[in-house]
Amino acid sequence: MIESFDPPPCLLLGPGPSNAEPRVLQAQARALLGQFDPRFTAVMNEVMALARAVFQTRNERTFPVSGTSRAGIEAVMASVIEEGDRVVVGSCGRFGWLLEDIARRYRAEVRVVEAPWGEPIDPDAVRRALGEAPTKCVALVHGETSTGVLQPLEVIAAACREHDALLLVDAVVTLGGCEVAVDAMGWDAAMAGTQKCLGGPSGMAPITYNARVEAVIAARRTPVASNYLDLVQLQRYWSPERWNHHTVPTSLVYGLHEMLRLVLAEGLAARWERHRRVGRAMAAGLAALGLRRFGNAAYALPFLTPVWVPEGVDDAAVRAALLYDHGIEIGTAFGPLAGRIWRIGTLGYNARMESVRRLLAALEVVLPAHGFAVPRGEAIAAAETAYASAPPAAPPPDPHGRLAPTAEATNR
Amino acid sequence: MIESFDPPPCLLLGPGPSNAEPRVLQAQARALLGQFDPRFTAVMNEVMALARAVFQTRNERTFPVSGTSRAGIEAVMASVIEEGDRVVVGSCGRFGWLLEDIARRYRAEVRVVEAPWGEPIDPDAVRRALGEAPTKCVALVHGETSTGVLQPLEVIAAACREHDALLLVDAVVTLGGCEVAVDAMGWDAAMAGTQKCLGGPSGMAPITYNARVEAVIAARRTPVASNYLDLVQLQRYWSPERWNHHTVPTSLVYGLHEMLRLVLAEGLAARWERHRRVGRAMAAGLAALGLRRFGNAAYALPFLTPVWVPEGVDDAAVRAALLYDHGIEIGTAFGPLAGRIWRIGTLGYNARMESVRRLLAALEVVLPAHGFAVPRGEAIAAAETAYASAPPAAPPPDPHGRLAPTAEATNR
Repeated sequence: MIESFDPPPCLLLGPGPSNAEPRVLQAQARALLGQFDPRFTAVMNEVMALARAVFQTRNERTFPVSGTSRAGIEAVMASVIEEGDRVVVGSCGRFGWLLEDIARRYRAEVRVVEAPWGEPIDPDAVRRALGEAPTKCVALVHGETSTGVLQPLEVIAAACREHDALLLVDAVVTLGGCEVAVDAMGWDAAMAGTQKCLGGPSGMAPITYNARVEAVIAARRTPVASNYLDLVQLQRYWSPERWNHHTVPTSLVYGLHEMLRLVLAEGLAARWERHRRVGRAMAAGLAALGLRRFGNAAYALPFLTPVWVPEGVDDAAVRAALLYDHGIEIGTAFGPLAGRIWRIGTLGYNARMESVRRLLAALEVVLPAHGFAVPRGEAIAAAETAYASAPPAAPPPDPHGRLAPTAEATNR
Repeated sequence: MIESFDPPPCLLLGPGPSNAEPRVLQAQARALLGQFDPRFTAVMNEVMALARAVFQTRNERTFPVSGTSRAGIEAVMASVIEEGDRVVVGSCGRFGWLLEDIARRYRAEVRVVEAPWGEPIDPDAVRRALGEAPTKCVALVHGETSTGVLQPLEVIAAACREHDALLLVDAVVTLGGCEVAVDAMGWDAAMAGTQKCLGGPSGMAPITYNARVEAVIAARRTPVASNYLDLVQLQRYWSPERWNHHTVPTSLVYGLHEMLRLVLAEGLAARWERHRRVGRAMAAGLAALGLRRFGNAAYALPFLTPVWVPEGVDDAAVRAALLYDHGIEIGTAFGPLAGRIWRIGTLGYNARMESVRRLLAALEVVLPAHGFAVPRGEAIAAAETAYASAPPAAPPPDPHGRLAPTAEATNR
C-alpha cells in the first residue's frame, strides 16, 4: 500500500518553484464552493482586481489561465496568431525558444532575433526586424530565467507602437519581484506564473491584455486551434457573462487570491526592494566564495544569480550534497549551459536574508569537500555588508504587510 | 484592503465539482519540493502507478495533464488528430459538443453521430459511421454529465477494433464512480478529471493511452498545434527521461496522489457499490417527492439523477433557497435543458447517505414554499428503503478504507 506523502523540508533556491507562502498553502486546503456560486465568483472578481493592481494595469482582461505559466503564454499567443502572421520573437535563452516554438506551432511566419545566452536582445535589432515587413506581434521574455537576464523593453515597446505590432511579454519570473507596470511600459499583453516571485506553487498563469489585443482576437478569421487555451472563450468565463468553459481549479484560485493579496499588503515597491536587497546580498556572498558570475551583469535579474560551476567541480555531486545534507535546492541549467552554471534564486517568500545565510554557510562546507577551496567566514559577512549598504529609503518593509511592533508593544 | 477568503460550508450535490476529501485538501497544503527532486519524482511515479490501478490498465502512458478535465481530453485528441483525419464523434449532450468542437479545431473531418439529449448514442449508428470511410478515431463520452446518461461502449469498442479506429473515451465523471476498466473494455485512451468521483478539486486531468495511440502519435507528420497539450512532450516529462516541459503543479500532484490512494484504499468495487447504493437512494427519495426523472432510466449514471423542474416552479429561486438557506448546491443545466432540469449528484466524498438525507429534508421545505406540494416524511423513508434493499454482497465498505472497529475495540 502506498502511503500518504510527507515531504521533507526543503529550501528552494533555484529559479523556481520557490517555497510558497505558508498562508497560500493553507488557503489551498479550504473547503470547495461551486464554480458559479456567487460567493465564489466574487472571489474570482477579487482575483482579477488584485491581479490588475499587481500588473499595474487598467486592462479589463486580467485573469488567470488554468494551467502553468506556459499555458498563459500559449493562450495569448495562440489567440493572437493566425496562420501566416508574421511574428518577431526575441531569443536569448530557453524561454525564447519556447516563444519561438509556440509561434511556429500556430503556423506563424517567425522572425527570430537572437542574442547569445547571457546577453539581452538588442532592441535595435528588434526595431530593424519590425521594419522588414508588417508584423502582427513581437514576443519577448522580460526575465530570461535560464540565463538570469532582465530584458530592457522601453525601446522595443516604442518600436512596436510605431510599427503597429502587439508587444506580448513573458513576465513569468519578474511579476512580483521587480518592476512590471504593464500600462506605463506600453506592453499589450503580459503572461506570468505563480511559482516564482508571487510566492505560490505553480498551476495558474495570471495574464493581462489590452483592448488592442482584444480587438485582434475579436477580428480573427479562424478559430483558435486550442479549445482549452482559447481566450475568446476564457474571457467570457472570467467576466460577468460567466460563460461555462472549464471548471476552474478552485483550490488554486483560493491560493492565487491569497498570493496576490499578500503581494499588495506588502506593497509592490517594498517587495521589489526586498528582492533587490536580498538578491544583491546573495550575489555578493557568492562572489566572496570565489564563484564567478555568468552573463552580462549590467542586465542581471535582481533576484537570480547564475554562477559558473568551478572547473573540475562535479555539478551534480554539489547539488546532491546541498539537497540531501543541507536541505537546499539550487538550480541546474538548460541546453548549452547544462552542467556548466548554477542558478541561485531568492524568489518570493525566499527573498529573505535567512535564505542567503543558509546557502552561503552550506556552500562553505560543500564546495571545499568537492575540490573548490573557499575563504572561510567571508561570504556571509560580504552578504550582510551588501545588504546593509543598500538601505531602503523607508524602514525595512515587513514582508507580510503587518505593522512593525511599536516600542510599547515590544516592551510588554 | 481585500481580506483572506473564508468559504462558507456548502454541500455540493450538483454534477461536480463535488466536495473534496478533507485529506486531499490537507495534502494540498504541504510544503513544496523542486520538480526534479528525486523525492518528488518518486511521488510522480506513484501517481502513475496509482492511476494505472484506478483506470485498470497496464498502459505505460498513464499520467495527469496539468489542467482541468478538458485539458486532458484536448491533449489526447490534439495529439492523435492531424489535419484532414476522419473522426467520428458521439454527441448526445454538452460534452459530446466539446469533443466535436475540439476535433474541428484540430482540423479533422468530423462525422457526428447524434442522439437526443437524455438518450445514449446508438452503437450500431457508430458502427455504420465507421463503415462509411477510413476513420482515425472515435471520440465518445462514457458518462454524459449534462444529461445523466451512461453510454454502453462494448459494441462500439469492438467496431473500432474491426475498423482499426482508435477509441478515445471521456471518463471524466465515471472514473472512481462506476466501472472503468480501460484494458478489459478495449478503450485505447481514457481522459478523466479530479473534481467528480475521485474526490478532489478540479485542476488535473488523469489520462491513459495504449501503445496503439502512442504509435499513432509517434508517426505524426506534423507537430501538435498546442505546445502545452502535446503528449509527445508530456510523455517525456512523465517518464524516467524527465524531459523538462512545464513546472508541474506540485500541490495538485500531492492532492491527486492522496485522492488515488484513498480510492484504492477503499477498493474500486466497494467504491462503485457505495456510489450505486447512495445514488439509488437519492433517486428513490426524489421520486417520492414527486420529481420526475429526466432521460432514459435504463442508461442512468448511478450517481447523478437529472429531474425535471416541476411546471410553474422557479428553477433559480429553488436553487438559491437551497444554497443560501440550506447550504446545499444542486446543478442547473446547459443548452436545450437550461432551466428545465436539475442535476443532482452524489459524487466521490459526497456519496454518503448523509448527503441524501440533507437534500431530501431541505427539498421537503423548499419545494412547497415555491409552489410544488410534496408528501411529508416520505422521501427520506423511501431513500432509506432503497438503500437497504440493495445490500452489498460484503459488509458495508468503509469509505475511507480503515478497518471497522472490532467488538473488543468498540467495547473499550
